[in-house]
Amino acid sequence: MYQVDLNCDLGESFGAYKIGMDEQIIALISSANIACGFHASDPLVMDKTVSMAAAQNIGIGAHPGFPDLQGFGRREMKLSPSEVRALLIYQTGALMAFARAAGQELQHVKPHGALYNMAGKDESLAMAVCEGIRAVDHKLILLGQPGSMMEKAAERLGLPFAREVFADRAYEEDGSLVSRSKPGAMIEDEQEAVERVIRMVKEGKVRTITGKDISIQADSICVHGDGPKALKFVERIREALKAEKIEIKPLREICRYK
Amino acid sequence: MYQVDLNCDLGESFGAYKIGMDEQIIALISSANIACGFHASDPLVMDKTVSMAAAQNIGIGAHPGFPDLQGFGRREMKLSPSEVRALLIYQTGALMAFARAAGQELQHVKPHGALYNMAGKDESLAMAVCEGIRAVDHKLILLGQPGSMMEKAAERLGLPFAREVFADRAYEEDGSLVSRSKPGAMIEDEQEAVERVIRMVKEGKVRTITGKDISIQADSICVHGDGPKALKFVERIREALKAEKIEIKPLREICRYK
Amino acid sequence: MYQVDLNCDLGESFGAYKIGMDEQIIALISSANIACGFHASDPLVMDKTVSMAAAQNIGIGAHPGFPDLQGFGRREMKLSPSEVRALLIYQTGALMAFARAAGQELQHVKPHGALYNMAGKDESLAMAVCEGIRAVDHKLILLGQPGSMMEKAAERLGLPFAREVFADRAYEEDGSLVSRSKPGAMIEDEQEAVERVIRMVKEGKVRTITGKDISIQADSICVHGDGPKALKFVERIREALKAEKIEIKPLREICRYK
Amino acid sequence: MYQVDLNCDLGESFGAYKIGMDEQIIALISSANIACGFHASDPLVMDKTVSMAAAQNIGIGAHPGFPDLQGFGRREMKLSPSEVRALLIYQTGALMAFARAAGQELQHVKPHGALYNMAGKDESLAMAVCEGIRAVDHKLILLGQPGSMMEKAAERLGLPFAREVFADRAYEEDGSLVSRSKPGAMIEDEQEAVERVIRMVKEGKVRTITGKDISIQADSICVHGDGPKALKFVERIREALKAEKIEIKPLREICRYK
Repeated sequence: MYQVDLNCDLGESFGAYKIGMDEQIIALISSANIACGFHASDPLVMDKTVSMAAAQNIGIGAHPGFPDLQGFGRREMKLSPSEVRALLIYQTGALMAFARAAGQELQHVKPHGALYNMAGKDESLAMAVCEGIRAVDHKLILLGQPGSMMEKAAERLGLPFAREVFADRAYEEDGSLVSRSKPGAMIEDEQEAVERVIRMVKEGKVRTITGKDISIQADSICVHGDGPKALKFVERIREALKAEKIEIKPLREICRYK
Repeated sequence: MYQVDLNCDLGESFGAYKIGMDEQIIALISSANIACGFHASDPLVMDKTVSMAAAQNIGIGAHPGFPDLQGFGRREMKLSPSEVRALLIYQTGALMAFARAAGQELQHVKPHGALYNMAGKDESLAMAVCEGIRAVDHKLILLGQPGSMMEKAAERLGLPFAREVFADRAYEEDGSLVSRSKPGAMIEDEQEAVERVIRMVKEGKVRTITGKDISIQADSICVHGDGPKALKFVERIREALKAEKIEIKPLREICRYK
Repeated sequence: MYQVDLNCDLGESFGAYKIGMDEQIIALISSANIACGFHASDPLVMDKTVSMAAAQNIGIGAHPGFPDLQGFGRREMKLSPSEVRALLIYQTGALMAFARAAGQELQHVKPHGALYNMAGKDESLAMAVCEGIRAVDHKLILLGQPGSMMEKAAERLGLPFAREVFADRAYEEDGSLVSRSKPGAMIEDEQEAVERVIRMVKEGKVRTITGKDISIQADSICVHGDGPKALKFVERIREALKAEKIEIKPLREICRYK
Repeated sequence: MYQVDLNCDLGESFGAYKIGMDEQIIALISSANIACGFHASDPLVMDKTVSMAAAQNIGIGAHPGFPDLQGFGRREMKLSPSEVRALLIYQTGALMAFARAAGQELQHVKPHGALYNMAGKDESLAMAVCEGIRAVDHKLILLGQPGSMMEKAAERLGLPFAREVFADRAYEEDGSLVSRSKPGAMIEDEQEAVERVIRMVKEGKVRTITGKDISIQADSICVHGDGPKALKFVERIREALKAEKIEIKPLREICRYK
């Protein structure tokens, strides 16, 4: 029987500032990537978000990012590998403490934004990310893109790795995402997006922007909860998964520490 | 046989900014209160400081403070108890992760600056501090002033508490420190300061600024490492303790989880 | 003929975070208090907000606050007068530069949140606020509460001062606002609120929470733009002012540098 | 008669953290680049530093940097041109306000660290820097490297530009600095460094790392005040300039708004 995880970024509010429909999306997903106070969130928001995730019994993940609240962690910063490793330890530890306070174990770590993208391509940053995670707990699952430098680094260090796919993004032939600046980067047709997801999960294949089929493994599907339209789309994916008898499970039940 | 811990604030540098003679003082103390990135420090400094403390095999403690780097955590901020609790969980968790990365267990938590002072007098803040620590790990020792609200809150919640005394400060009759703004607040004479410390450890007594003897229990002596003069003074205390056959031990060996 | 200014806090968004319906409220007011990057806002938001205000030809004011983005400047911080003076110079200067970039002059300064409240009661903080403003430009108008320490300090230093009143707040007999924690602090009935405003502007009187009439001078009415309901209320105030033939004018045309 | 300016970064302390020997170096230079609170400094430090510079009657300049206190503005950040323009307006405005508070005019702007380097090579960032400065005051002098994109952008916008040279750095044939990672990047021999400076000022020439002579114009010499050795070296440069009858003058008297 097929199984897949649904992951979503959560807990991105900060002080008086609110982002995301956390209360709604949390009922539709199986794993949460929770911001850790560097690119978004603050201690109170982390506490509340982890408590909500614990109440729903979904997988709790740390979502560390660059120390750039103003840029929401989306601006590239040139940090040394030792800085990145320390950032990972710090933020993972902070989120882990809230998980402990809620009586839960931390399940995974997914880097955010520019850090995710840069560590996906740069070997030394990818190694720094993995070393930081492993230093905190070698059983933590790194959630990232299949074929990325992060997957290679996790493999080299023996860190559990889970592969996520994107319903709304086009793929290049090498398995990387088509840059948002290119035409056709986003899969605008929802029906097409849903069908692509189902095929990735069941067949392990996706059609690239060039029209060629490539292999792709999907342990988790990345979804969004930042508006009513995004929520509807997640519901539609859930229905399609159900219709195809694909079970939705948290990462910890899918990725069995290869 | 008498035993006492020597604790000192450590890891207060930040980025290009350096504070403290950490490399020197670390060899003279038995427990380190390590800043957690809010009032001082950053992830790289935390990593380096925890590694140094681990190499010396001294007790590693979290030293959480207000989110006020500019004010070094010394400016009073009016935070709600739930904010303070979350601050404690966040910073303790972050420091704990660096301890794990260094193969060590976190020994204690000592709040910093204005947070230490405010939680020492305000019951709801003291409870928030203790609840935050306990939420992360109920075996963590809270290091604070004997007779303070923090001691009472720790007792109420069953959190281990260690009592620290100050060699260079005068005491009021109620066991609180004489405010720095008052004349006589600081014990300027080093010989007198050393003798006071020895008496606090061996007799459990100190002479107050009013000339009266009061009881005071000393699990730990708070020392400073912010300059050559401070270092010399710590060496002098160590010699006096040795001459009196008082053993210097980390908190974990002194405070046996009452 | 009667005249009054309508002032509103603006430009409180930050990076990816949005607060306030600035585009809508800006057409309804005559003076804007624009956040300066400490308790809210960032340089890009300031640039955009000042440009919008300049396009509407409304009075541009700096809205400096405590360095506490997470607390939105609403948490009390114990800063020294020299720190407060420097905060005022810094933030006023930054906002003034954006006004210059938009070809405008800065009209006024209104402290934000906890700084407004604390400087309203504490003489040394009030003096620090006024000294900071005057150091940048002695023609800048300080906008604050009539009868507050800020008014007294402005008078002492010869700094122009404009008095603001609140449509939705109850008053104590000494002219201060009833604390939000007390019952009756908010004027919930919109019709009553509008009538109170008209009376304050035309008669210079308001009925206190104790039922007594006191004198109060209104150079400006403080309104809010943080939601559809708030916007509607401002429109209602505008209609009532128009019906009473009270002209709405920016502060610079009302407060003629006493 | 020859004239040259001596410029130095100043006011880089922050809260409890101290960097630089400002009190000593300030007597030896003619223009100060004063940090603006983003990569270093805070409002109190800015106030104090500007006051010191005003008392010495040296040229006061803003030294804006990336919003990265932890990295001291030395880490590359990928900001959009509109973000950079707004950063320049904000920081220049803040520093200008302290200059006004001290009864002085702002003389120049010199970007810091990674911003200086990136805007020196990237045309759109260089234009953004110049547009930000010009928006605040079109008479402000931009201080930068001769031949850089910043010089070209200043020329295009009609912004006054002053050219600085480095005593302790080797040059490439295109007039750029030899990267610090290359051998020979630093001129270690002080006598050689002094002679190079004199030649740059008097002959407008420097020998590159490849041994070829190139033209270089020196309106200002960049010096450092971060330690006793740096101070000694500045004194030596001053003596050599005096011996060669080269007058030391602030930028405003040298760069006559070409």
